[in-house]
Amino acid sequence: MKRMSPFRKLISYEEAKKIVLENVKPVEQTEEISIDEAYERVLAEDLTAKISVPPFDRAAMDGYAVKAEDTYGASRFKPKKLKLLGAAYPGKPFNGKVGRGECIQIATGCPMPAGANAVVMVENTQEREGFVEIYKPVYPIANVAPKGEDIEKGDKILKAGTYLTPPKIGVLAALGEKTVKVYVKPNVSIISTGTEIKEVGSKIEEGEIYDINSHTLSAVVMANGGSPVRYGIIPDSYEELKLGIKKSLKNDLIVLSGGSSVGTRDLLYNIIEELGEVLFHGVQVKPGKPTLFGLIQGKPVLGMPGYPTSCLSNAYLFLAPAVRKMARIPEREPKKVKVKMGHRFASSSGRAQFLTVKIRDGKAYQAFKESGAITSMSEADGYILVPVNADVIEEGEEVAVTLLE
Amino acid sequence: MKRMSPFRKLISYEEAKKIVLENVKPVEQTEEISIDEAYERVLAEDLTAKISVPPFDRAAMDGYAVKAEDTYGASRFKPKKLKLLGAAYPGKPFNGKVGRGECIQIATGCPMPAGANAVVMVENTQEREGFVEIYKPVYPIANVAPKGEDIEKGDKILKAGTYLTPPKIGVLAALGEKTVKVYVKPNVSIISTGTEIKEVGSKIEEGEIYDINSHTLSAVVMANGGSPVRYGIIPDSYEELKLGIKKSLKNDLIVLSGGSSVGTRDLLYNIIEELGEVLFHGVQVKPGKPTLFGLIQGKPVLGMPGYPTSCLSNAYLFLAPAVRKMARIPEREPKKVKVKMGHRFASSSGRAQFLTVKIRDGKAYQAFKESGAITSMSEADGYILVPVNADVIEEGEEVAVTLLE
Repeated sequence: MKRMSPFRKLISYEEAKKIVLENVKPVEQTEEISIDEAYERVLAEDLTAKISVPPFDRAAMDGYAVKAEDTYGASRFKPKKLKLLGAAYPGKPFNGKVGRGECIQIATGCPMPAGANAVVMVENTQEREGFVEIYKPVYPIANVAPKGEDIEKGDKILKAGTYLTPPKIGVLAALGEKTVKVYVKPNVSIISTGTEIKEVGSKIEEGEIYDINSHTLSAVVMANGGSPVRYGIIPDSYEELKLGIKKSLKNDLIVLSGGSSVGTRDLLYNIIEELGEVLFHGVQVKPGKPTLFGLIQGKPVLGMPGYPTSCLSNAYLFLAPAVRKMARIPEREPKKVKVKMGHRFASSSGRAQFLTVKIRDGKAYQAFKESGAITSMSEADGYILVPVNADVIEEGEEVAVTLLE
Repeated sequence: MKRMSPFRKLISYEEAKKIVLENVKPVEQTEEISIDEAYERVLAEDLTAKISVPPFDRAAMDGYAVKAEDTYGASRFKPKKLKLLGAAYPGKPFNGKVGRGECIQIATGCPMPAGANAVVMVENTQEREGFVEIYKPVYPIANVAPKGEDIEKGDKILKAGTYLTPPKIGVLAALGEKTVKVYVKPNVSIISTGTEIKEVGSKIEEGEIYDINSHTLSAVVMANGGSPVRYGIIPDSYEELKLGIKKSLKNDLIVLSGGSSVGTRDLLYNIIEELGEVLFHGVQVKPGKPTLFGLIQGKPVLGMPGYPTSCLSNAYLFLAPAVRKMARIPEREPKKVKVKMGHRFASSSGRAQFLTVKIRDGKAYQAFKESGAITSMSEADGYILVPVNADVIEEGEEVAVTLLE
């Protein structure tokens, strides 16, 4: 019987995260997509405005387009009287010219007619028998949005790397851009390992359990801007696992669960050692110590513990920021809330702890059930990462809870 | 020439939001989808566990499965010596029975063999020539995860209405559920109105502009769990718009932009009055006063201002919470950050104000360019909703900024 091998040197969570982030690269490949699919994607080119917005001088208010000088001195008691030539409707500009002593009715957004240089708001006027009484003077350009006021043709308006939110999609639409060049989502290979692990939906026999990890890992990849590519379940066989890893190397990151523990079947470590280089094996974090990271042909390979809770908590700690960096959205941090601890919590693990909590009445309570229980995470609202050097969180102490989303 | 009509009674933002939320209904229709598509969806049935998790008593640590009583009194100086019968690997349970004075090697997650009731961690043992020296006693059930410890068969483990996050998808997988019944996403009809509005990608003539609103509204609908259904651009014609609205009534909510202002072409108000009932027209909010809401055949109809900025700010204020309620995710509030105001801000509008801000060095600065500028939103990080009764925000005052995502 092969001896169980101990972990090599454990490294801190911070150090491990740094190594992972240093070894995953932002995607370079781009694709052209419709702006209606562009929400939450990342712009892959500097965008220069091909037109001005607005594309013409236009009324910024409903009212009457005038020559400003015709209104000087107007008041409710001494109105200025202008001849009404016609009207400009949206989509139907007024084609004539406004001369001295003349005006046209104009709606917000309509092009300003030739000759006019200001708009008197409808509230400050009264129309009577082909004339309009002006009750308040306006200065030139008043209530007019000049051409290019918002965006000038030739402006570099959005930079490569911009995360596309609704307002930014609005800019693309304003400029008439039907499609947009974005970075592709990073593809992440997901492999579950373990002879006892069976595909969800199949029948399980005594000693077998369902594959949880590839489903939770897929969800975490999606939540952080990546695209999961599942490679199924590989039994605990050196050759089969090696083959599976080789196949999956075409993607940007390879994530495995199981096979990284200190068991007799410490397969993943040996395969990465054979095909590439192990950068760390074993992290001072609880749960999730048996986490492993290496490179094969330059591709980052992240080995997660097989236990579903440890696998998922480490996915939040390592996989999520790695995928965000690859997807070029590193600044999009998960949602955090600040609450007070509802009870005293003492840690004696000597490791950083991923502490799942429920939030009730604005206070955080430990949600821990027992190691490995998926319900200890599914019933939690979020987690506190308790640093390795923090032994105790006192009742009432403020803590930052990262929501489990 | 038709007279411009003034707004009816303006109502407060809070009152308007309340009316909108009272009149949109959570979706009832459900669909069965793969658990790999279930991230961010909402469970539509109570889920009862059809199996226990774990489905058998299993080792919670790597080590040796023993009868606990055989270890009592063990120490490093006086080890207990047990005969090693064999090993349990993942997927290969040990089929024999552990008797008095015997043990087997066992890996985390393996089923406990008959006869054994505890696991001694590998760190507290030494294997020698077919025997294992035990250095530390264990109590019964030590390092064993009993069947059903995590989830008991028959447990109502997830309730209808649960928002499916990675840990919750983990629960579905653990129970072997390949598919899951979720609520369909609410379908939201999106219509842009205006004769001067042209489809993005087409060629525009003098006086015409691109359709921005249907693209930003689509993105806001997606961001809040809904499914946008675009009905294109309808010119300012009473009959065409009425026909378009009637067609779009098959969806759960109808959102229009333009046609709700006090112009000569106050079409939408009149159409809703003819086909149904207007619940409010005009809100004390800046920008975005000409917002309109009504019901046609029981379907909520939300009329947004045509100005892209006003349309989008009101989409964040009214459409986003409405879609979240319909999608049954009302508690998923947008991300907020608390920062200090970087300068004094005085409001004199007499309306609640949607104030776009940039955040620099932890301070908020007004991002306002000019009314209607899409860049005043695209260049902002978030917004502060300044209440109608707050005239001034002092420099250094803490403000909650909702991120524009």
